[in-house]
Amino acid sequence: MNLQKVAERLGITEERLHCLQGTIISKSNWPEPGFLRFEKETSGIEAGTAIFKNGEVVYGYPKIRRPLMLGAAIRKHFPDTVAVEEKMNGHNVRLLSIDGELVALTRGGFICPYSTEVASSLLPAEIFEESPQLVLCGEMVGPENPYVPKDIYPTDSIDFYLFDIAQKNRRGTSGVHKTHAFAREFGLKTATFLGEFDKEKAPERIKKIVIKLGRRGREGVVMKDPENRLAPLKYTCSEANCNDLSVAFSYYNDYALDFFVSRVVREGFQSVEWMESAEERKARALCLGESILLPLIDTIQRKQRKENIVQRVQIRVRRLSTAREFEYHLHRCGIRAIFDQPVPEDDGYLIRITKPIMSTNDKTQALLDGEMW
Amino acid sequence: MNLQKVAERLGITEERLHCLQGTIISKSNWPEPGFLRFEKETSGIEAGTAIFKNGEVVYGYPKIRRPLMLGAAIRKHFPDTVAVEEKMNGHNVRLLSIDGELVALTRGGFICPYSTEVASSLLPAEIFEESPQLVLCGEMVGPENPYVPKDIYPTDSIDFYLFDIAQKNRRGTSGVHKTHAFAREFGLKTATFLGEFDKEKAPERIKKIVIKLGRRGREGVVMKDPENRLAPLKYTCSEANCNDLSVAFSYYNDYALDFFVSRVVREGFQSVEWMESAEERKARALCLGESILLPLIDTIQRKQRKENIVQRVQIRVRRLSTAREFEYHLHRCGIRAIFDQPVPEDDGYLIRITKPIMSTNDKTQALLDGEMW
Repeated sequence: MNLQKVAERLGITEERLHCLQGTIISKSNWPEPGFLRFEKETSGIEAGTAIFKNGEVVYGYPKIRRPLMLGAAIRKHFPDTVAVEEKMNGHNVRLLSIDGELVALTRGGFICPYSTEVASSLLPAEIFEESPQLVLCGEMVGPENPYVPKDIYPTDSIDFYLFDIAQKNRRGTSGVHKTHAFAREFGLKTATFLGEFDKEKAPERIKKIVIKLGRRGREGVVMKDPENRLAPLKYTCSEANCNDLSVAFSYYNDYALDFFVSRVVREGFQSVEWMESAEERKARALCLGESILLPLIDTIQRKQRKENIVQRVQIRVRRLSTAREFEYHLHRCGIRAIFDQPVPEDDGYLIRITKPIMSTNDKTQALLDGEMW
Repeated sequence: MNLQKVAERLGITEERLHCLQGTIISKSNWPEPGFLRFEKETSGIEAGTAIFKNGEVVYGYPKIRRPLMLGAAIRKHFPDTVAVEEKMNGHNVRLLSIDGELVALTRGGFICPYSTEVASSLLPAEIFEESPQLVLCGEMVGPENPYVPKDIYPTDSIDFYLFDIAQKNRRGTSGVHKTHAFAREFGLKTATFLGEFDKEKAPERIKKIVIKLGRRGREGVVMKDPENRLAPLKYTCSEANCNDLSVAFSYYNDYALDFFVSRVVREGFQSVEWMESAEERKARALCLGESILLPLIDTIQRKQRKENIVQRVQIRVRRLSTAREFEYHLHRCGIRAIFDQPVPEDDGYLIRITKPIMSTNDKTQALLDGEMW
């Protein structure tokens, strides 16, 4: 690897690049011959940025910030109009080709073997041949997404939705219009474009969109400057906030605590901004309370019935090697997962995966036995 | 101070005592001539243990543990019967006399000037003259409790309820029956004795007590072995859990996050243990949701109306020096508080105190202005 050239591309000195290795930058060993990844943001370089052996740099996908008061944030943030897209609920991937091989990078900058196989079956082969510099940013969603399984999208397995385009060795992305034009050209699915609104009218229009999306179990919206001059913002539906709480309270002793408060606080601000009536607030409080209490009760009762508290997901692969490599990938990400025997199917294998939820499982058993909190 | 004697009383070596000074043991400077306090539990010595200049040791009040499944815990923990007392909602103090002067030690082992003045006006003068070794353990409660103001008790100001008796230089306490007998002799109020129950019947009886206490806004129960052979347990009403959440979400950016989860998990276990119907669970979920959402909305709306997010409490003192010393005491405990000008009254002064809730105040303003979470 030509370190001088890489440092130049990153906009830092070669010495600084050298210092970062072993602290912020770590080596990812799979697939051979490996590559370097930024574990944290530093010197303005996003976490998840990857540097390949051939010296090519793929920047991390920037974090999208979240306002809690939609109207105030839109007025403050956007100069003119606001383009609105659906926020997809799955995992963020960047698809690209390295030395002629398609790879899918996760948000954190690992190559995910499963996402890579899924991408190679979905993308037209010529896409990176024509544009080897291309980086397709999008979301993998569906019931066979092993990170975030969701059956709210029109797929029985897993699908890819494009929402941005980037180039290797360059910061920044191409913006809404170029992304959708590109997707049309290559027949790719995109995060739905929901309209472009004058900034004054946008909050009311987006409110209506968010309410409708929520009813369909969808997550929310991403708001972008149509000219791509500034960073996008995100905003989620009440149902998505409550659904997050449901998952969290099913596994109450395993999930990060700050997860809860942020979801709840979103509900408070949405209710204030939308100037809800006492009756509407009562309905919102009931939904909030139920999404916390009922999954928690369900977990306790499952344990009372001697069930193990686990999370079950599944994937479908063409090659058994993909499953083996995915198992290794989860392991290196610190995710415990037990893979069932593959079930052969027409064009590959179905593999059920069990994620033990150790802490909640053990704590619930102990509390049921009369132990103290 | 005779360090050898103190070490002997604590059951540790003089060398160990020496090592602990400056790490676990720190000096409390008020009132003169100061004393030593254990900031953390160590070598089986409770946090809050105090060592006075004359060598007298006052052990910290032991932490009371909390089961979430009442029935299982009672069956496991208690050998025969269970004595039940009301759990008071205020702050824990230990009252004692040092060199003829009455002092009130907080849970953490500070002398609280305000609690000390309150105690000296409530206790009969002869109580420590007759028994200088006595340590009275109890709760200060009422609307003029500046730590936990509550108007659910029969006092307009602040009152002391005895719940245990200890001796200087000795671990352990005297137990339920001796405590109540002592209180009768000296005309002291006690945490209400709610009965002694066979361990098999106790869970059902305590459930009924907890429901009744909850309706009256009270906190819950402490369960003790009548023979005082083992540590007591505590259990709280649903209303108290929800009330805690209300306070926490009024000041959502200032309170510890883990506060939230523990209260919610208590609700889940209580609902399971009491085998509630779907309708009862819905009602509980509504209460839970409302106690989270409504105070949060109230805080946001107060900030929208340009109010400062603060907590207001008040105290009533006989001497102005008590207020000044209490101001110093809060400061050394890391509690920010602004004291109003004292308002003279018949036999002392009323002083209103404002506790700024800085983080929630500033965060709410920023979010209302369209800043990101």
